[in-house]
Amino acid sequence: MPSSRTIALDAMGGDHGPDVVIPGAGISLVRHPSLSFLLFGDEARIAPLLAADPNLAARSKIIHTDTVVAMSDKPSQAVRRGRASSMGRAIEAVQRGEADVIVSAGNTGALMAMSKLILRPVSSIERPAIAAIWPTVKSECIVLDVGANIGATAPQLCDYALMGAAMARALFHIERPTVGLLNVGVEEIKGVEEVRQAHAWLKETADLPIRYHGFMEGDQIGHGVVDVVVVEGFAGNIALKTAEGTARQIGQYLRAAMSRSLLSRMGAFLAQGGFRVLKEKMDPRRANGGTFLGLNGIAIKSHGGTDAVGFASAIDLGYDMAESGLVARLGADLEAFHGKLSAVTEK
Amino acid sequence: MPSSRTIALDAMGGDHGPDVVIPGAGISLVRHPSLSFLLFGDEARIAPLLAADPNLAARSKIIHTDTVVAMSDKPSQAVRRGRASSMGRAIEAVQRGEADVIVSAGNTGALMAMSKLILRPVSSIERPAIAAIWPTVKSECIVLDVGANIGATAPQLCDYALMGAAMARALFHIERPTVGLLNVGVEEIKGVEEVRQAHAWLKETADLPIRYHGFMEGDQIGHGVVDVVVVEGFAGNIALKTAEGTARQIGQYLRAAMSRSLLSRMGAFLAQGGFRVLKEKMDPRRANGGTFLGLNGIAIKSHGGTDAVGFASAIDLGYDMAESGLVARLGADLEAFHGKLSAVTEK
Repeated sequence: MPSSRTIALDAMGGDHGPDVVIPGAGISLVRHPSLSFLLFGDEARIAPLLAADPNLAARSKIIHTDTVVAMSDKPSQAVRRGRASSMGRAIEAVQRGEADVIVSAGNTGALMAMSKLILRPVSSIERPAIAAIWPTVKSECIVLDVGANIGATAPQLCDYALMGAAMARALFHIERPTVGLLNVGVEEIKGVEEVRQAHAWLKETADLPIRYHGFMEGDQIGHGVVDVVVVEGFAGNIALKTAEGTARQIGQYLRAAMSRSLLSRMGAFLAQGGFRVLKEKMDPRRANGGTFLGLNGIAIKSHGGTDAVGFASAIDLGYDMAESGLVARLGADLEAFHGKLSAVTEK
Repeated sequence: MPSSRTIALDAMGGDHGPDVVIPGAGISLVRHPSLSFLLFGDEARIAPLLAADPNLAARSKIIHTDTVVAMSDKPSQAVRRGRASSMGRAIEAVQRGEADVIVSAGNTGALMAMSKLILRPVSSIERPAIAAIWPTVKSECIVLDVGANIGATAPQLCDYALMGAAMARALFHIERPTVGLLNVGVEEIKGVEEVRQAHAWLKETADLPIRYHGFMEGDQIGHGVVDVVVVEGFAGNIALKTAEGTARQIGQYLRAAMSRSLLSRMGAFLAQGGFRVLKEKMDPRRANGGTFLGLNGIAIKSHGGTDAVGFASAIDLGYDMAESGLVARLGADLEAFHGKLSAVTEK
């Protein structure tokens, strides 16, 4: 029997606020009937939407807040003024143990800064990371860091490897996920010093809860060669955005190609079942939700512009993460690794 | 009337050596009948292939070499031992003014190291970069650096901007190309210090031969928002490879979707004209050839595994670059910029 999980929602976050968040919660509740929700935000806007979904209303509690973190607020402003906001209160609900997960479609920088401040990083790690779920030709993989920090030291890259593996274990139910380190393929340069050092450590350390694959290049991510791809946040963010852009670009080529002649249009009509499958495969809403890993609690960032279906995916992700006991396992994994690493580096 | 240009070819480079290089030259010669070729490599392998194409034979000269740079050679090995190789001799032909361009499908690191050593960087720049031609929904853009160096200082990023603009001017015939600086979109981190400094300089410097667009994110590359995208080589290489991988991945989805039912297969058959257009759009051979920018001479790297059609694209690119007088213009542009930059930084 699935346990009962509570999700704290920043109902005001994102481009559409409650108009997307509340119906999104409704969709996710159908899939996970044991869920309950704490809805933080403007009661006057939330209540009528909730009234339209009696199932959801029965499993939800509104906590009214007057203030909202704006999409344009700087993280420093949010941290100073934002604790009373819908976002800040929702994060606090996780810190107090009233909710298992916080999901917000609001300002990324503010969400990260406040989550870090309120939930605090797991004791043994220096830096949380943002992990993305990346569709592959085989199934899915996890890529991190996609933008929490710029640059990463070798120990931080190793932490990312273990954090990503803990998430892969939680979501894909693989006991020892495969992990690759993203690098460049030009022979002369063979990658940056930190990446080479992390590579050596991950290779040499015995009995890690991962299977270390070694270096990999950008074109292998979507090929599904590993469960977890580790990269520092500047290149990781650029890779993620570039892949999204390329997918959109090809979708545009495809539409143009299929409407160029009557025959193409007829063919596309006959093949519409196939196109529907393709569209589902490429639907960015399916993999909506960046996860902040490495905190004492789970914070999920949904795309700001997503719709209810996409927001429901972010809630589903939060549910899976909560179910998995990821945070507890992560702390233990990292502590064990740091013990082994000191043994290696002191040799 | 187009001028006569001579291309030096490393006939032994790449996975297939002369079997691809010689037919590739033949294809390019049909498109540019004024071209002539210097073919460096094993005469016993080149001569029979050349005999099969009398047109090409009439415009080519074989220069026999005994040694070859192997794909597995380290750049340092190549530099020590490789000057007598087909690659080394072909680069020297450009240095001596016997050829306008060198094209090789061989070892990237070796080609870069030897080109740098033999052709030397343009006086005012610190570092050459590798530029790639990137298809966009509008047409094409230039992205650099895609892997010559890891990391880049602010002045180096500015040099890349001007080098890329010179190439865009040569290939796209735009007098003042638009240039964007690739950055990450997460609000809190707003990009690395070097990128911000380069941004400030490009914005403040008056009368540059570019129109500076500002920051952009990875998903905007394929959207065609600018003619030139500037990024340091680690993230640039990962972006390029990730886009290639994503395109292949979607191609695979598409094939699977179109063969899933009889109706889809029939539709795909009717729409085959459309699919052919799509395939051409996505053909990686169309944009084959990384250009080493910032040297006193033009060196083009073709993909090692390409076929004759792809290799011909790399030769075409070399021809266009030679025709454009890019190298001379580049030196002048960079000198003028450095003069203006000192004026800004001394303020």
